[in-house]
Amino acid sequence: MDHIEVQTGVSRLERVAKDNFAKERDSAAFSIREMTHLLNGGKERTDARERAEQLMERDPEIKATNFFDNDRPTDRARTMALLRRHRELHVELEGKDDLLSEWLLSTMESYDRSSSMRLYVHQVLFRETIWAQGTSEQWKEYEQDIHHMRVLGCYSMTELGHSSHLPGLETTATFDRQRDEFVIHSPSITATKWWIGMSGQAATHTVVLAQLMIDGKNHGLHWFIVPLRSRDTGRLHPGVTAGDIGAKVGRQGLDNGWIQFSQVRVPRKNMLARWATVTREGKYTPPQSQALVYASLIGERLLVLPGLYDMVSQAVTIAVRYGVARVQGGINKQLMDFQAHQTSLMPIVAITYGLNINAKVYQEEWKKRLNLSQVKGREKEFIELSQEMHSISAGFKAWFGWWAAEAFETIRRTMGGHAYSSYNAVGGLIADFGVITAGGGDNTVLAQQTARYLFSGLKRSQQKKSLAESIKYLERAEQSHAHKFDLNTEKDRIESMEFLSLSCLRRAAQGLMDRVSEGGKMEDAWNHNMGSLLDASKSHTYYLMIHTFWKYIQTVEREDLRKVLTDLLELSSFHFLERLASLLMEHQILQASEISFIRGRVVELCAKLRHQALPLVDAFGESIELVPFLIDRTAWPDWIIKAPLGRYDGAIYSNYHNIIKSAPRCFGTPDYWATSVAPLTKSNL
Amino acid sequence: MDHIEVQTGVSRLERVAKDNFAKERDSAAFSIREMTHLLNGGKERTDARERAEQLMERDPEIKATNFFDNDRPTDRARTMALLRRHRELHVELEGKDDLLSEWLLSTMESYDRSSSMRLYVHQVLFRETIWAQGTSEQWKEYEQDIHHMRVLGCYSMTELGHSSHLPGLETTATFDRQRDEFVIHSPSITATKWWIGMSGQAATHTVVLAQLMIDGKNHGLHWFIVPLRSRDTGRLHPGVTAGDIGAKVGRQGLDNGWIQFSQVRVPRKNMLARWATVTREGKYTPPQSQALVYASLIGERLLVLPGLYDMVSQAVTIAVRYGVARVQGGINKQLMDFQAHQTSLMPIVAITYGLNINAKVYQEEWKKRLNLSQVKGREKEFIELSQEMHSISAGFKAWFGWWAAEAFETIRRTMGGHAYSSYNAVGGLIADFGVITAGGGDNTVLAQQTARYLFSGLKRSQQKKSLAESIKYLERAEQSHAHKFDLNTEKDRIESMEFLSLSCLRRAAQGLMDRVSEGGKMEDAWNHNMGSLLDASKSHTYYLMIHTFWKYIQTVEREDLRKVLTDLLELSSFHFLERLASLLMEHQILQASEISFIRGRVVELCAKLRHQALPLVDAFGESIELVPFLIDRTAWPDWIIKAPLGRYDGAIYSNYHNIIKSAPRCFGTPDYWATSVAPLTKSNL
Ligand SMILES: Cc1cc2nc3c(=O)[nH]c(=O)nc-3n(C[C@H](O)[C@H](O)[C@H](O)COP(=O)(O)OP(=O)(O)OC[C@H]3O[C@@H](n4cnc5c(N)ncnc54)[C@H](O)[C@@H]3O)c2cc1C
Ligand SMILES: Cc1cc2nc3c(=O)[nH]c(=O)nc-3n(C[C@H](O)[C@H](O)[C@H](O)COP(=O)(O)OP(=O)(O)OC[C@H]3O[C@@H](n4cnc5c(N)ncnc54)[C@H](O)[C@@H]3O)c2cc1C
Repeated sequence: MDHIEVQTGVSRLERVAKDNFAKERDSAAFSIREMTHLLNGGKERTDARERAEQLMERDPEIKATNFFDNDRPTDRARTMALLRRHRELHVELEGKDDLLSEWLLSTMESYDRSSSMRLYVHQVLFRETIWAQGTSEQWKEYEQDIHHMRVLGCYSMTELGHSSHLPGLETTATFDRQRDEFVIHSPSITATKWWIGMSGQAATHTVVLAQLMIDGKNHGLHWFIVPLRSRDTGRLHPGVTAGDIGAKVGRQGLDNGWIQFSQVRVPRKNMLARWATVTREGKYTPPQSQALVYASLIGERLLVLPGLYDMVSQAVTIAVRYGVARVQGGINKQLMDFQAHQTSLMPIVAITYGLNINAKVYQEEWKKRLNLSQVKGREKEFIELSQEMHSISAGFKAWFGWWAAEAFETIRRTMGGHAYSSYNAVGGLIADFGVITAGGGDNTVLAQQTARYLFSGLKRSQQKKSLAESIKYLERAEQSHAHKFDLNTEKDRIESMEFLSLSCLRRAAQGLMDRVSEGGKMEDAWNHNMGSLLDASKSHTYYLMIHTFWKYIQTVEREDLRKVLTDLLELSSFHFLERLASLLMEHQILQASEISFIRGRVVELCAKLRHQALPLVDAFGESIELVPFLIDRTAWPDWIIKAPLGRYDGAIYSNYHNIIKSAPRCFGTPDYWATSVAPLTKSNL
Repeated sequence: MDHIEVQTGVSRLERVAKDNFAKERDSAAFSIREMTHLLNGGKERTDARERAEQLMERDPEIKATNFFDNDRPTDRARTMALLRRHRELHVELEGKDDLLSEWLLSTMESYDRSSSMRLYVHQVLFRETIWAQGTSEQWKEYEQDIHHMRVLGCYSMTELGHSSHLPGLETTATFDRQRDEFVIHSPSITATKWWIGMSGQAATHTVVLAQLMIDGKNHGLHWFIVPLRSRDTGRLHPGVTAGDIGAKVGRQGLDNGWIQFSQVRVPRKNMLARWATVTREGKYTPPQSQALVYASLIGERLLVLPGLYDMVSQAVTIAVRYGVARVQGGINKQLMDFQAHQTSLMPIVAITYGLNINAKVYQEEWKKRLNLSQVKGREKEFIELSQEMHSISAGFKAWFGWWAAEAFETIRRTMGGHAYSSYNAVGGLIADFGVITAGGGDNTVLAQQTARYLFSGLKRSQQKKSLAESIKYLERAEQSHAHKFDLNTEKDRIESMEFLSLSCLRRAAQGLMDRVSEGGKMEDAWNHNMGSLLDASKSHTYYLMIHTFWKYIQTVEREDLRKVLTDLLELSSFHFLERLASLLMEHQILQASEISFIRGRVVELCAKLRHQALPLVDAFGESIELVPFLIDRTAWPDWIIKAPLGRYDGAIYSNYHNIIKSAPRCFGTPDYWATSVAPLTKSNL
């Protein structure tokens, strides 16, 4: 009974939706295809992406389909199967078609964020810790095993009792001079390593962050490689207690877990010793600079940007398609024609473009800077540049992580009840996204790190020292902003955000000074001025994103693309100014009339871009199927987006209904009828 | 292996948490117990609540426990079992202990929002439609069956293709004069009744909203009673196609479903005929006033307020307890001592108190007005008063529904990674809550209905007609607000919100007039001014909630309670002013310096109330266990809150770990090891 097809008449509304789709696609003011190339980073990359998508969709072991009805064990198993298959494809292509291989990864991430997080934990967190913290011998020992997944790794930093404040970690690694070993130990419940991705069921090894103890003295946190499970049987090694963390809000396919070590012994060479060492005799040498130790985290954090782009672009695609397809009752008014719908969705579309561009620019920039770290004599310069990059990546993760959380909520609200159906995918995107605001460094903590960098920049500028590019504007610390901004120019819009950041920072600095000069501790003073510090961090990060977006557009050659991108930029920057409106007035940078102007422009730009909405979301994933006699568009493949309400062809209702009809137990009398319903309905209680 | 108890040392951090709990409870500046009485609505109500909680917790069929590991079929069955048990308890107590019976219901809602929604659908939506729309004969025919759940009802309004714009509904009820029957029919896929709670598996009957067709003429929407399933077997009646709606974001225990009618015949008497009638000959008489037809919706919508109070108060209890219990690493700094933590959580605590009070006040008020509807000759007055109440209930649902969504997100963010564990309950609260912003009338639509009421109030005031109490301030339409507000007084804080509402409304009115006088249609003009209209609706609703909160406090006799409530009120109103800051400046009601003052006061009040946080959340559910020789406090029972991080006793870590350890498949090698892991780890690929 699970698959009957009830055909009740024709769907007039579905025909209307398809007509509207055709009309709005025809009115695209730019080449969707060329925009896709721009977003993908070039035509050859689009080609590789299309091949990757086709390969994955057709692969019988991947079975591209939705998985919203899976239970936990099924989902955990599915993602591991996907990971294995991915590895096989990857090994097959290696050195022959790296672009294809890269897009396979990226497509897997778009398709399923639990599988990709499994891979991320192994490939980025585990692998890069050994690469960046290990000596070249250590790296050589593991490189091949990691690459071929003969060793499956996880990353044990967080503990049940501690995370944002790492120095409090309780796990110890005590040097046993006699046996030339470290003893890894969890002394209490709160020392339990917690949340560790893949440690629940699959990982064979982990890197562990632990307090290095030598002769009763604590030398602080260092990394150790510790085997967890037999590579043969999957059984835990003696002394290791690990388990699955159970039910989570999202990412059900990932086996997050917890680990306790009871006097687990590893040889001395298992301490990652690129920056700090312990000799056979137990002599300890500390790292030269902490910046070098943490530099590898920057690259990881920068990966959040393309991740946000990927998730938000899918969600807003679904919402825009629904908004275009859905008409109100008998009249032909599309939801997208409501002003509130436009002001909800269009800024999200615009900023998603900005995210794509910022992600590309900063990934490139970081690669360049990393190269510098290899050039002899330029370490100091590298350290400075990586401090700047740390501030940028922390700010982006915090403020655009939070922005994305709000964007998802807004998207959800534009879809009425239908966002509540798992099959429409938005619910799952929100749930999977949830971890981002805490995982990989809590946003409230990271946002303050950007503030710290700004604050030290302010001090440098007062000492007339040079400032890094992204905070050069702090040099104008003494300058007043009495001049009027011409909000019709991007330059002045950006400048008003710079001045806001500066003004918040000055206020915070004053507050800090006042408190400290009254005899307060710096830490308390910081806490008392957290509001202004966070305001500075926020306006700085918004300014930076807009600035990068702006610079990038100036390099775009095609006029049709440049034109629409300029509109998107303008909307983004007015939108951020609107978000900052109350601060801009409070700090007397803008006046009430200017704020009215800004709000008016947001509404106008949303209305202007409304008829480009469908082409703009199409471009996120536009791809073309080349069959001998015709060219057919496909866009974000439906199997990746999954939501019937987000279908490319506008056939939203029939597909939605069909999915529901084939869900398990859609039909039939439930088992509980006899025990819980019939006793009521048949009784004469 | 599922239940081993790993005891790794003592937990120092847990001891610290318990100590901090004791300290902060001791420093309560008010009687927690008395505050609980106030929130519950009196001592005798607290007593009944405590008895209800004990009864439910101990009932072997209810098995109070968490259910975060359940799959869909298990959850659907569990909630129906709970419903059956609840009905048995209810029938047992009927007429003997109504207060206890009432609290059983309320406790069920607090414990599990899927079961309570099953009941809500039957008891409120289905039952009250028949009560309010049916003749007294119709009501008599069903009353007993509904009461005893011999008939299990659902409420079929929404269709796949239509909801916010009801006139577009496609389902028809065609009068067949020959057979004296109505033929209920779904002509297309988009006519499918959609989302209908309990229709998926359990309901035996439904009320259906359909277009009444007589001799080819459409007389608009009317309600019809249609049987769906056999009360004996649960099998669908011929002509009825219904199925379960499958996977949802939350409320997994509720069988939302979809229904298609294929020429289903019901006797003429199944049309609910209190306000409109069809005679044996097919002569149609329309209702006298639409207001009477929709009045019953007001009471239902008002139920959202206590619902929000219930859910937010649980979530913020968990977050505050975690914030008090959690210390950062080695140092003894509690999360609650971070400024950002205080400014995140304290306004939520404050407004949650305001919600409780507003819920009580407006429920009472509505009861009074409903009585008026029974008094001969006062119908007109009733209609006016119910229009006002409609505006109030719509505004509250929209703006406090949205406020609650943000509050949940804020709460989530204060719990770091731990909000991502299902066992900490906040994830489930957010997921269950999700439906509220769309279900029962979409918020974007409802917020505009309040705006519409305000707008017509403005017009009345210009015509010097009298205004209802809640919008009396619109009489000052002509008055300027040039005078300075003294923001240290509640009166002036409230007045500044009133003036803001007025000013937004004036701007919208101007915009509407401009557009209409240019020849635009009113509908388009409305759409073009939606921003200002929503602004007015928002500031009006914030003002109203603060105003009611303020008035209420003046009636509180105990000074200790009044004092802390006054602080909570002050924080709430400064918080709303901060939310409205940019509008207040844009409309030149407040100046930049006043906004700085407001923001400063929010921070100060949060700091002031921070040490009352734990007592304040305790009071949400404070209850006392009376055992012969001692008195022991219990507060929101842990079995209702469920979250180990929200435990009353502060033993957060050990309980969290124990729950995880007893989750299904915490331990053991997963089934997929052989197929997906070993081939990698054992191979030499
Ligand atoms: C879990 C759940 C249970 C439910 N239970 C029932 C039930 O038992 N019985 C029943 O009949 N229904 C039920 N519903 C349906 C619910 O009432 C509808 O989902 C709700 O009325 C919204 O309608 P829609 O989903 O069709 O949204 P749409 O009408 O498609 O609206 C989508 C979005 O468009 C925008 N929009 C729409 N109109 C306007 C406007 N005029 N101005 C500006 N923006 C606008 C809004 O952002 C809105 O969110 C349930 C829904 C859910 C999710
Ligand atoms: C799904 C998931 C996967 C994860 N995977 C891994 C993994 O593989 N390996 C690993 O090591 N870890 C992992 N983590 C852990 C993650 O890194 C931590 O959750 C994160 O660092 C936050 O720490 P916490 O949860 O202990 O929050 P806490 O430190 O308890 O912080 C709670 C809240 O307190 C507030 N707060 C804390 N400090 C400050 C401050 N200084 N100023 C102001 N406010 C503050 C913030 O609001 C914060 O959200 C994972 C987490 C999740 C949810």
